[in-house]
Parts: sequence; C-alpha cells; structure tokens
Amino acid sequence: MAPPLRPLEFLNQSLHRRVLVELKEGRSLRGVLEAYDQHLNLVLSSVEEVGKEPTGPSPGVTLLRGDSVVFISP
Amino acid sequence: MAPPLRPLEFLNQSLHRRVLVELKEGRSLRGVLEAYDQHLNLVLSSVEEVGKEPTGPSPGVTLLRGDSVVFISP
Amino acid sequence: MAPPLRPLEFLNQSLHRRVLVELKEGRSLRGVLEAYDQHLNLVLSSVEEVGKEPTGPSPGVTLLRGDSVVFISP
Amino acid sequence: MAPPLRPLEFLNQSLHRRVLVELKEGRSLRGVLEAYDQHLNLVLSSVEEVGKEPTGPSPGVTLLRGDSVVFISP
Amino acid sequence: MAPPLRPLEFLNQSLHRRVLVELKEGRSLRGVLEAYDQHLNLVLSSVEEVGKEPTGPSPGVTLLRGDSVVFISP
Amino acid sequence: MAPPLRPLEFLNQSLHRRVLVELKEGRSLRGVLEAYDQHLNLVLSSVEEVGKEPTGPSPGVTLLRGDSVVFISP
Amino acid sequence: MAPPLRPLEFLNQSLHRRVLVELKEGRSLRGVLEAYDQHLNLVLSSVEEVGKEPTGPSPGVTLLRGDSVVFISP
Repeated sequence: MAPPLRPLEFLNQSLHRRVLVELKEGRSLRGVLEAYDQHLNLVLSSVEEVGKEPTGPSPGVTLLRGDSVVFISP
Repeated sequence: MAPPLRPLEFLNQSLHRRVLVELKEGRSLRGVLEAYDQHLNLVLSSVEEVGKEPTGPSPGVTLLRGDSVVFISP
Repeated sequence: MAPPLRPLEFLNQSLHRRVLVELKEGRSLRGVLEAYDQHLNLVLSSVEEVGKEPTGPSPGVTLLRGDSVVFISP
Repeated sequence: MAPPLRPLEFLNQSLHRRVLVELKEGRSLRGVLEAYDQHLNLVLSSVEEVGKEPTGPSPGVTLLRGDSVVFISP
Repeated sequence: MAPPLRPLEFLNQSLHRRVLVELKEGRSLRGVLEAYDQHLNLVLSSVEEVGKEPTGPSPGVTLLRGDSVVFISP
Repeated sequence: MAPPLRPLEFLNQSLHRRVLVELKEGRSLRGVLEAYDQHLNLVLSSVEEVGKEPTGPSPGVTLLRGDSVVFISP
Repeated sequence: MAPPLRPLEFLNQSLHRRVLVELKEGRSLRGVLEAYDQHLNLVLSSVEEVGKEPTGPSPGVTLLRGDSVVFISP
C-alpha cells in the first residue's frame, strides 16, 4: 500500500486550477493556483478578491504569504 | 505497558471520519479527515463551513493550515 | 533533594482527571485529560465547551492545539 | 564582581511566593509560583482570576502557557 | 521540463515594477518593488499608502517587514 | 573606528535608570531597568502601570516577557 | 554588475537620518535612526510619537522591538 499523501501534497491536485483561499482577518481571494511551497506561500493568477466590487481579475500573478492563509478549497 | 499515545496519534482514530474543526477568529468547518501532519495541517473532504448558508458540501478537498486550528473533535 | 518539577510535569498529576482549559479568544473547554505533549497539544475526552448550550459531552476525544492554550486548571 | 542576574533568574526570588501574572487579552491571575521554565510556562497554586467573582482559590495547581504571559509581579 | 518556479521567484517578474502590497490590519501600500528577501521583507520606492490623503509619493525608499505582508499583486 | 553599537547594547545605557516600556494591547509600565536579555525579557523595579490609579510603586521586581514589548524609552 | 542590495541593506541609507516607523496596532514614531539589526530591532533618537500631544522629542534613545515594525520610510 502506498503511504498516505501528506497534506501539502494534496495541493498538487489543484495546480493550474481555480481555488478559493480564505485568509486571516476575513479576507478571501479566488484565482488559479500556479505555485506553492511548504510554508503555504501561494502564487495565484486571474485573482479576484471575494466581496470587493468586481473590477475584473487582476493581470499578472499575486503572491500570498503562507502565514495569512487559513484554508484553501476548490 | 505500552507507552501512552501522543496527542497527534489520536488523530489516527479520526482518519476517514467526520470531524469538526474549530479555527481562530470564530470559524469552524465540518468534513471528513483525509490527512494531517505534525503541524496540524489538515485535509478535509465533503467540507461545510458551520454557520454559513448551506450550499451543499464543497467538491474536492480543503487544505487547512495548522496554525489556524484551535481544536478538532468528532 | 529531588530537583524541582518542571512546569509541564505537573500535568502528570492531571492525567485521566477532569481539567478546565482556557483558550485564547475567550473560549474554554472542560474534559478529562488523556494526553499532552511539550507543545501543550492536549487530548481531552468527555468534552464540553463552557458557556455553550449543553448538548451532553461530545463522544470520542478532542485534540487541542497547544498554541491556543492560555492555562489549564483542575 | 558577580555577573548580573539574567531576567528569568529573578523569578527564583518569587518561588513559593504569591505573584500577579498579567496575561494577554486583559486577563490576570494571582497565585503562588511553584515552578517555571525558560519559556515562562508557569505553575501556580491557590489561584484566583482577578476580576472574576471570587469562588475561593481553585484547588490543585494551574499551568500557564508562557506565550500568554505579559508580566509577572509580586 | 524545467522545474516549476517557487512562489518567491515570481517576485522577480515584479522587480522595478509597480506593485500593490496588502498588509495585516487592513493597510496597503503601492510602490515600485526594488528588493525583497526570503522573509518577504520588501523595499518599495515612490510609495503611497492606499486610502490616505494623497501627499504625493514619499521620497526615498520604504522598507516593509515581511511579517506584515498578506499579499503582493501587480 | 569602533563598530556601531547593536540595538540591544543601547539598553546598557539605561541599566539602573528609569524607563518607559510600551507593551502590546496599549499597556505601558514605568520602572527602573534592572536586567534584560536578547529576547527583550526585562526586569523592572519600582514599577507603576501608566494610566492605572496610582497605588504607589509595587515592591519587588516585575519580569516582562520580551514578546509583549513594543518599545523602551527613557 | 554588483548583486542587488538586500532589503535590510537599504536601511544603511537612513542611518543618522530622520525616519517614520509605522508599528502594529496603529502606532507610529518619528526619530533619527541610530542602529538596527537583522530582526529590525531599531534604535531611534529624538523620538516623537505621531498623533500624540507634542511634548518635545524625548531625550535619550528609544529601542523598538522589530516584531512590532510594519514599515520604515523617510
């Protein structure tokens, strides 16, 4: 039997897919997950901040500091 | 006599079972525990956020950062 | 003379006994201490959250992340 | 000349004496200091929480997590 | 195939370009990214604080402590 | 030319002198600095909490946890 | 080509010059930067707290704990 996946390995399934990232202090971002590291620093493209007036997704990529991440879901 | 279980080893009993995860800032999630590590990073499937309008459990899995976890109960 | 006990060793006296755990953000839990480690991660059984409508103690065990613990008393 | 005492060594003077421990989030406890370590984890006996309705000191000892301590005074 | 970029390497694309830095506690700064390190300590030039009365960009450079950074976007 | 003093070495100038210590969460203490270490754990004598009804300086010494210190001034 | 400056090296440009230091919890200080270290512990002289009734700059130097610093600008 293969060893169980470790939590961060599950993020591989989400690479290049749209995710919802909930942050501390009640903020959240949606975007396409382009990269991550073991600190949960994340890079998202086509980012929109949830609950902000839509201005279209921002161009380029956004880097999130892992320390602010609460959870990441599809 | 076997040595006593260490706290994180108790999570093995909850693998693939439904848990309630209380987070900092008053949020909580319910879901099935699929994986965890020593930082209490958790992977949950069939997740619902407690106190949010139910929209059905989210598809796929949610990764929670251990730093935000307060406690985990059945 | 035996060396003085270190703080965490006092928790041995509380193993398998009922404790009150005060957490950050004003929450507190009562339960039976089943295990702990040097980070103050705790396992409690027969847990009730203080100040919540009683629904009977929860079945199974609850794992608390040490980082959220403020103090533990009998 | 003896080297100056380091901060935590001053706590030796308070061992088995009554202290006031101010905690984060505005809480404070009074009790007799029974033990401490280099993280400022503390063990207090005959503990009363300041500003709570007095119910008599709690029996047994209370373990405080150093991370929550702001200051300790006589 | 080249290995995927790690999150912080994406900041290279933003060097000497204008970025928006969202900070904890609801503050945000705009400026030109002049330098960064692995802690996400940042140096910005031509900085303006978003939501403050505009007084023109401040002269010289501003050093931000990585610990306060939530995310960085174009 | 002598190397510049490192920040904590400036505290030597304040040893056995009265200082004002500003803490997180808006509290501040005045007292005579008796000792410090590299974590900014401090020992103060003749301590008074600023903004509290004066009850005379407390006897003995107060140990402050460095983690709560914001700044120290004369 | 010389390697790019690392963020903290930019503070050398501000040594012995007036800076504005923004702190967590909405406080800020102005003063002359006399020293700093890699934790962003800072020493300022001629310090005034922004938004407080001016009482003239305080004599001597103020030591700021790096952990409270959000950003430093000219």
